[in-house]
Amino acid sequence: MHINHIGIPSDHPRAKSLYIREKLVNGLRRGLVVPEGLIAHGRGEAYDYLIGEHTTKTAQRAIKAAAAILLLSNRPVISVNGNTAALCANAVVELAKVTGAGIEVNIFYRTEEREMAIKAELEVHGAKKVFGVGSKASARIPELQSERRRVDPDGIYTADTVLVPLEDGDRTEALVKMNKTVITIDLNPLSRTSRAANITIVDNVVRAMPALVEAAYKLRGTTMSLKKITDNFDNRKNLQQSLKTMKGEL
Amino acid sequence: MHINHIGIPSDHPRAKSLYIREKLVNGLRRGLVVPEGLIAHGRGEAYDYLIGEHTTKTAQRAIKAAAAILLLSNRPVISVNGNTAALCANAVVELAKVTGAGIEVNIFYRTEEREMAIKAELEVHGAKKVFGVGSKASARIPELQSERRRVDPDGIYTADTVLVPLEDGDRTEALVKMNKTVITIDLNPLSRTSRAANITIVDNVVRAMPALVEAAYKLRGTTMSLKKITDNFDNRKNLQQSLKTMKGEL
Repeated sequence: MHINHIGIPSDHPRAKSLYIREKLVNGLRRGLVVPEGLIAHGRGEAYDYLIGEHTTKTAQRAIKAAAAILLLSNRPVISVNGNTAALCANAVVELAKVTGAGIEVNIFYRTEEREMAIKAELEVHGAKKVFGVGSKASARIPELQSERRRVDPDGIYTADTVLVPLEDGDRTEALVKMNKTVITIDLNPLSRTSRAANITIVDNVVRAMPALVEAAYKLRGTTMSLKKITDNFDNRKNLQQSLKTMKGEL
Repeated sequence: MHINHIGIPSDHPRAKSLYIREKLVNGLRRGLVVPEGLIAHGRGEAYDYLIGEHTTKTAQRAIKAAAAILLLSNRPVISVNGNTAALCANAVVELAKVTGAGIEVNIFYRTEEREMAIKAELEVHGAKKVFGVGSKASARIPELQSERRRVDPDGIYTADTVLVPLEDGDRTEALVKMNKTVITIDLNPLSRTSRAANITIVDNVVRAMPALVEAAYKLRGTTMSLKKITDNFDNRKNLQQSLKTMKGEL
């Protein structure tokens, strides 16, 4: 297999998007990302065009509500897959710190080598503890087949809130059925994940994760009622607004 | 790097899409496809959802006009990249036969090994002659930088009509400037390629290529005026109709 590299001039109109692509292709080479993850990223790119490749006000509202929920939770956990690790390990670790959340590796195509690679990537960015690796992922999410159902009894299994950026529909629905509060980051407002989650941030994970960190820092320092913020958030309405933005862009 | 396989049950609601993905991932392993090609495919998938994952009537009109143009041309050439070879080498060869078109390997990330792999894939499916491989790609498309500009003097360089499925914007625009009639297959009706081409088929290449073969067989046997079909085709209007379909789907 050949993985060639292109030098990306910083004034290229698509420099940012090309840089992200290179990060992922690099993640593939390093064993973090699987080929199917590249295809999933491409789908995201298409939807990102349709929201204008920026964090919309609609997404900002979801980000604020998500940060509030994470701060209110007793046992929040951030679920990390290959694409998330390759694209924003740094923001994941920061978000865990500011919200007191755990970090758990959870991947669709599970091999111990890949789990270890993702764990190492998180540790390079400062993660102290990473759940869900190897024999630690000994609990099972009910109703799910395959290796996706394996979770850590000290992590996702007993969490009250789970942030699952870039998740598949089956797993999101199963987590909701376990009565967990589920936050997702998904650029397709029509996906099963987007519709099943309690809070859906329709944004590129590369922008949304740092924005979550920023929102969490801000909310931690205010006297605003976090409960009020989350009570006022309507995910269905928020998804409708993202759809409207996309229609306008077409 | 790990490339795992999932068994796809034939009654899975997304079986067709998963099967196509597997073909591409397989193409990556065989050196036909590059990681960037997987990302591009993902973008296509997202737009394909938005046209309902079928060949629309709008696309059918573009397919008919494209088949007519190919039959009317003196030196039509089909440009083949890694994704096209991995997904529909068979239809490419059939289309070349029925329209008398040449077949040329033309790839963004050019290595001789990859060119040879794509050529071999086409030959396995019955191609007798494949342009554009190795030192044969000695001519240059004006105004293009990088290896993309290399074309075969007996192929694309002297063609009057070029079918470029899954092409990038720069190259499409350069071919149009060379006064070639350019036909493309592109699921994003807003892309530069879609807007620059003379005929844009907004459809999945997996469906559009066999549909082109069928249309060419039909038109070859009729007494219809091929010229009339192409004269009556309005690409801008056709693209607008695809956009309208997508807006409705959102």
